[in-house]
Amino acid sequence: MSELRKDPVVDRWVIISPKRGERRGAFGRIRRMDEEEQSGQCPFCSGNEGQTPPEILAYRKKGTGPDEPGWRIRVFPNKYPALGKTQKLIKKSRGIYKVISGIGSCEVIVETPRHGVSIFDLSIDYVSDLIRVYRDRIIDLTKDPRFQYVLVLKNEGFLAGSSIDHAHSQIIATSVVPKRVEEELSGAKKYHKHTNKCIFCQMVEQELFSRERVIQENEEFLSIAAFAARFPYETWILPKEHRSIFESLTEKEVIQLAKILKSTMNAMNQVASYPPFNYLIHNSPCWERPLDYYHWHMEIIPRLTRIAGFEWGTGLYINPLSPEEAAHRMRQALS
Amino acid sequence: MSELRKDPVVDRWVIISPKRGERRGAFGRIRRMDEEEQSGQCPFCSGNEGQTPPEILAYRKKGTGPDEPGWRIRVFPNKYPALGKTQKLIKKSRGIYKVISGIGSCEVIVETPRHGVSIFDLSIDYVSDLIRVYRDRIIDLTKDPRFQYVLVLKNEGFLAGSSIDHAHSQIIATSVVPKRVEEELSGAKKYHKHTNKCIFCQMVEQELFSRERVIQENEEFLSIAAFAARFPYETWILPKEHRSIFESLTEKEVIQLAKILKSTMNAMNQVASYPPFNYLIHNSPCWERPLDYYHWHMEIIPRLTRIAGFEWGTGLYINPLSPEEAAHRMRQALS
Repeated sequence: MSELRKDPVVDRWVIISPKRGERRGAFGRIRRMDEEEQSGQCPFCSGNEGQTPPEILAYRKKGTGPDEPGWRIRVFPNKYPALGKTQKLIKKSRGIYKVISGIGSCEVIVETPRHGVSIFDLSIDYVSDLIRVYRDRIIDLTKDPRFQYVLVLKNEGFLAGSSIDHAHSQIIATSVVPKRVEEELSGAKKYHKHTNKCIFCQMVEQELFSRERVIQENEEFLSIAAFAARFPYETWILPKEHRSIFESLTEKEVIQLAKILKSTMNAMNQVASYPPFNYLIHNSPCWERPLDYYHWHMEIIPRLTRIAGFEWGTGLYINPLSPEEAAHRMRQALS
Repeated sequence: MSELRKDPVVDRWVIISPKRGERRGAFGRIRRMDEEEQSGQCPFCSGNEGQTPPEILAYRKKGTGPDEPGWRIRVFPNKYPALGKTQKLIKKSRGIYKVISGIGSCEVIVETPRHGVSIFDLSIDYVSDLIRVYRDRIIDLTKDPRFQYVLVLKNEGFLAGSSIDHAHSQIIATSVVPKRVEEELSGAKKYHKHTNKCIFCQMVEQELFSRERVIQENEEFLSIAAFAARFPYETWILPKEHRSIFESLTEKEVIQLAKILKSTMNAMNQVASYPPFNYLIHNSPCWERPLDYYHWHMEIIPRLTRIAGFEWGTGLYINPLSPEEAAHRMRQALS
């Protein structure tokens, strides 16, 4: 049974999840890759559907049934969830400490039935389908009144925290608004209060004017090297118009997002030789929507530098590559 | 020339430091260990003093001179500093973005002349000397009016971000108060305003009462598994009485801290098989001291789990080991 604990000083939530400790290699020495994969028994491969929990959603060929081969993209619950969906929401205090039960949902999205294939090497259609799956799962999870936030993320490569090599994304719903998102919300709200403008819209405007950190744009989206990037080649993708709700994407926007995401990832793979990476969709929380002060966006973080004590201890990151140079190199890779 | 940039939404400072990119293996694929070390030419070893910048401080045998062998502990400026000491403090705005020049100081403390030796395997006297060096350097750096904060940290092991294997610590002075520290200060200040008490003093009291997360205590200090630990075996060491200024340690406190630090590290090495780790001293900023609401402490973080997209994207950490179990195991290792 997992629980959420709040640090009494900095209001940071932590999930204490002994169940996650049961995974092989969950901790102890950091090890590379599951044995299943090395022996060709990858649980995410087509044909091995029986090794995963039953599917929640799949885009699959007509005539094929759930948990059978024939799918293009497949979603199921995480076998070792950090948060449980069936628990009751219980809040407790112990002196200065606060605890709530670890309610949430952890789902895995397998992006292709084939092992060793990256979705960004596949067609725009395929990437569009992945974005549609993100959208559909967010819409469904947001209906659960116990959830405050739904996060979409992807870890690729061992050094980016992925424990399984087969291309996959994750969707995690939580009963608290995570600290990083709350900071963005409150920063954006403060800016809006003073200026009556969305700070992300201002960022889009300023970046399109100066162009020094612009990597690419299309009709609907912009990709930039973030001005205060924490990591070399840290890249953000933002809607050019004000949009606070990811899952309200129109069909046209789905395709435009697929296009810019695929080509941004390809540029990153060229300049940084297929780096391990994380990406995340920062969306608005499940309540009070749409928001006039917040703007959803994607953050893509290649893992080329290690995070040392300095970063942990201070929250002050050292980036050895200027964002302007990063954008320049990525633009060149695209031309 | 490095600069500090502020993220306009979440007020996070980032150091953009192209000079750090010049180190071999600074980024690009993550590589293990410097070539110098593999060939026995470690710049931190006794006899190789000429390979480092001139020393700032050393505890050394009588009759030996600066930058000669004969030292026990030796301090010099980082060869590839993320921040420069000679720049002027310049603040600029570019639209929604803010920049200040990258002023600061980055020093390296080599903990022993011998390669491959951990200071925690040496005597209490030796560890006490290391703490005295931390104290002396903080006192000196705090005098510079351009610095707002001085951070002491140690990275041990490649996976903890250390690029050189020879045992060393670092001291970094910055012209901004880093975000993580500012969060602690403002959380502690808020608590003090409501209760007239220091939240860390309350924590010490509650932990000593329940004892379920206590690892060890001596006359002056307490080591605990943090209630909302982000990582397995994350351990904090706190003064039992209210102390806001690390460098005001008395001689008695220096020795008591050396004792608890050495035995805590030994317990951690036993339960987690000599893990890579980071430790940090969270001290109060250089101004407005002493503080009645803040309490210095050490955070020790073994690096047994990898940090994935979920943690980046949310600031919500998943810890697969309960702090009570971690404390229990560490107590057993000590008994």
